[in-house]
Amino acid sequence: MSERYLRGIEIAEQLASDNLDEFLTSRVAELAPDFARMAIEFPFGDLYSRDQLDLRSRELVAIAALAAMNDCGPQLRMHVRAATRLGVEKTEIVEIFMQVAIYSGFPAALNALTSCHDLLTDECPRQAARRVAGQG
Amino acid sequence: MSERYLRGIEIAEQLASDNLDEFLTSRVAELAPDFARMAIEFPFGDLYSRDQLDLRSRELVAIAALAAMNDCGPQLRMHVRAATRLGVEKTEIVEIFMQVAIYSGFPAALNALTSCHDLLTDECPRQAARRVAGQG
Amino acid sequence: MSERYLRGIEIAEQLASDNLDEFLTSRVAELAPDFARMAIEFPFGDLYSRDQLDLRSRELVAIAALAAMNDCGPQLRMHVRAATRLGVEKTEIVEIFMQVAIYSGFPAALNALTSCHDLLTDECPRQAARRVAGQG
Amino acid sequence: MSERYLRGIEIAEQLASDNLDEFLTSRVAELAPDFARMAIEFPFGDLYSRDQLDLRSRELVAIAALAAMNDCGPQLRMHVRAATRLGVEKTEIVEIFMQVAIYSGFPAALNALTSCHDLLTDECPRQAARRVAGQG
Amino acid sequence: MSERYLRGIEIAEQLASDNLDEFLTSRVAELAPDFARMAIEFPFGDLYSRDQLDLRSRELVAIAALAAMNDCGPQLRMHVRAATRLGVEKTEIVEIFMQVAIYSGFPAALNALTSCHDLLTDECPRQAARRVAGQG
Amino acid sequence: MSERYLRGIEIAEQLASDNLDEFLTSRVAELAPDFARMAIEFPFGDLYSRDQLDLRSRELVAIAALAAMNDCGPQLRMHVRAATRLGVEKTEIVEIFMQVAIYSGFPAALNALTSCHDLLTDECPRQAARRVAGQG
Repeated sequence: MSERYLRGIEIAEQLASDNLDEFLTSRVAELAPDFARMAIEFPFGDLYSRDQLDLRSRELVAIAALAAMNDCGPQLRMHVRAATRLGVEKTEIVEIFMQVAIYSGFPAALNALTSCHDLLTDECPRQAARRVAGQG
Repeated sequence: MSERYLRGIEIAEQLASDNLDEFLTSRVAELAPDFARMAIEFPFGDLYSRDQLDLRSRELVAIAALAAMNDCGPQLRMHVRAATRLGVEKTEIVEIFMQVAIYSGFPAALNALTSCHDLLTDECPRQAARRVAGQG
Repeated sequence: MSERYLRGIEIAEQLASDNLDEFLTSRVAELAPDFARMAIEFPFGDLYSRDQLDLRSRELVAIAALAAMNDCGPQLRMHVRAATRLGVEKTEIVEIFMQVAIYSGFPAALNALTSCHDLLTDECPRQAARRVAGQG
Repeated sequence: MSERYLRGIEIAEQLASDNLDEFLTSRVAELAPDFARMAIEFPFGDLYSRDQLDLRSRELVAIAALAAMNDCGPQLRMHVRAATRLGVEKTEIVEIFMQVAIYSGFPAALNALTSCHDLLTDECPRQAARRVAGQG
Repeated sequence: MSERYLRGIEIAEQLASDNLDEFLTSRVAELAPDFARMAIEFPFGDLYSRDQLDLRSRELVAIAALAAMNDCGPQLRMHVRAATRLGVEKTEIVEIFMQVAIYSGFPAALNALTSCHDLLTDECPRQAARRVAGQG
Repeated sequence: MSERYLRGIEIAEQLASDNLDEFLTSRVAELAPDFARMAIEFPFGDLYSRDQLDLRSRELVAIAALAAMNDCGPQLRMHVRAATRLGVEKTEIVEIFMQVAIYSGFPAALNALTSCHDLLTDECPRQAARRVAGQG
């Protein structure tokens, strides 16, 4: 294992330990193990490990970039969790999504809010489950 | 003039006084004066004026979002200047552009670096002029 | 409530009364109530309320823009319904989606047709349900 | 020459006779003559020639789609000219660009206004030339 | 039926006979039969039928273009199947998705790998079903 | 210098020796030397150096991806040159741009043809210069 990989894993673990395990044992990682390695090495080992920008700022950048691209998949959710772990307030993340409407329009902002709703609300999971079941 | 507009102008001036004058007297503002007003009211009067996110974070968000969308026009340049005024280091902005390569690829990052090169370098304008004239 | 909001709600109700209630009581609106308000104020209160373009033309613009961006989420569906309410023929909306293939390619057009299929067909809901259940 | 081509040329001429000549004798048409033919046949011969949507609506669709995609090249300008020829008011086109900010953000709208400014203003060309020369 | 359609059908059948039937009898084809015809005529009848590029290269182009646009819908899956039928190795397709990360970033590449996972793995369907059921 | 960098430089030189020198001594490389290094290491050192896809196919992928994203900047031109050096015919590259119209629409295809026109035509540079000077 390259030094870049080890450095990357260390940061990725700090940011998103649960998501990391999930990713590393995912079927995509099984299908393209070299790419799973590169997806640790380049983003986290090469870039996130640099001192020029602190981790908190990096997570704001990740969230803003992904929301602006209207990419509301697992990557956005992973970075929302990571930002929360680093102490970014949920209200700040909601605010970033709102601000993104300026640059990429309302649909991108609304899609981001919808797709990360459960990560940004303080409703407990049981309440959420009830609501979905129509009993809330 | 609406309260939103006045609140927006105050913030926009703080961020980018030169660019603001340029924008408000531009031919686009002449062609669509109501839109020029809305472009102050909504982004700055409604969103930037909120306390939920500090101005520095808002500029990181703006720069990341615009670079990720591969939009390297006057908006990106305006926000790079605004971020610099707020004390964001040039090395931090370069780093944001580098990080954006993770989410939108190398061309978007290289285009952002190219388009804002003169705002991010410490070379004095005279040197730059010489270089362009082939005497550098 | 601001005048812009009241003006916006009036237009939004005219365009999409069902969708509007759904939106205003949605979990996203609960999570980011200020953004839900802005999503009425700016699009409907500030822009749709202007005389420079009639409502029918505005709905053609909304449908064309969203389909061209390959954004086939709730926004596109909302505007397809609104256009229908304003008297735009279903065949016209199908034709807009077809025309969008010129500017953004066949996948965007096919995705729009797929995602709004049920709103554009004249098949009654019961038939549709049967078909999905494999009895059609 | 196919029937589709002849049908397409007829419509394209009606929409944009100057731009058409320019396009058909352009270096791109010289490099890829078959594609220049297809760019008449498919958009104009196959789609614009259909009765399901009138020409005015088709031009609103074209302008909205291209502006929303933040594509402000020759295609957008061609369709702005075509719309004007069909009687769409310049104020309506400005309004479409403004509305596009809802779906794709302010930069796309501002870029469209900037790129088509000369086609949408009533300033005479001499005034424009003077202004650019700094004498305006 | 036009000659272009017949020529297109012949190629489309060669590439993706199963998907073709599915497409031609789909509800979208029912809703917009003329567009379903055009979606054969233009891509396959006009372009794929030309000698200037061999079919294998065309499928590499299709897969790269769709993955780069982060469009992971039925079109991408159809072309992955077509490429496989033409003898493109699954490892080559995985590699194309990996390479696309250079131009459009890691999320687009990961989304493509996720969305076509079942077409690119050699796991038999029964194993896959078990795994999904949590017994794998 | 890392092994990845040396491996990357070797491939990049083979593909585009002129463009490479230009890039490595560019002002962007001066501003962000670490990113210039990464732009060799990751694309060429990590990905292009792998055996899973031959260089010719990799260049088809690069050209298709960049054209589909409507990115007609220096990256597209670099890869058009590289493909030509590897023996891809100019007519094949023109054909790729044409095919991209299927997936991303006519404007993207026309923009790619326009932006790379001089690299794809057989007109000698002197003729081109004359033509631009209006004497052609």
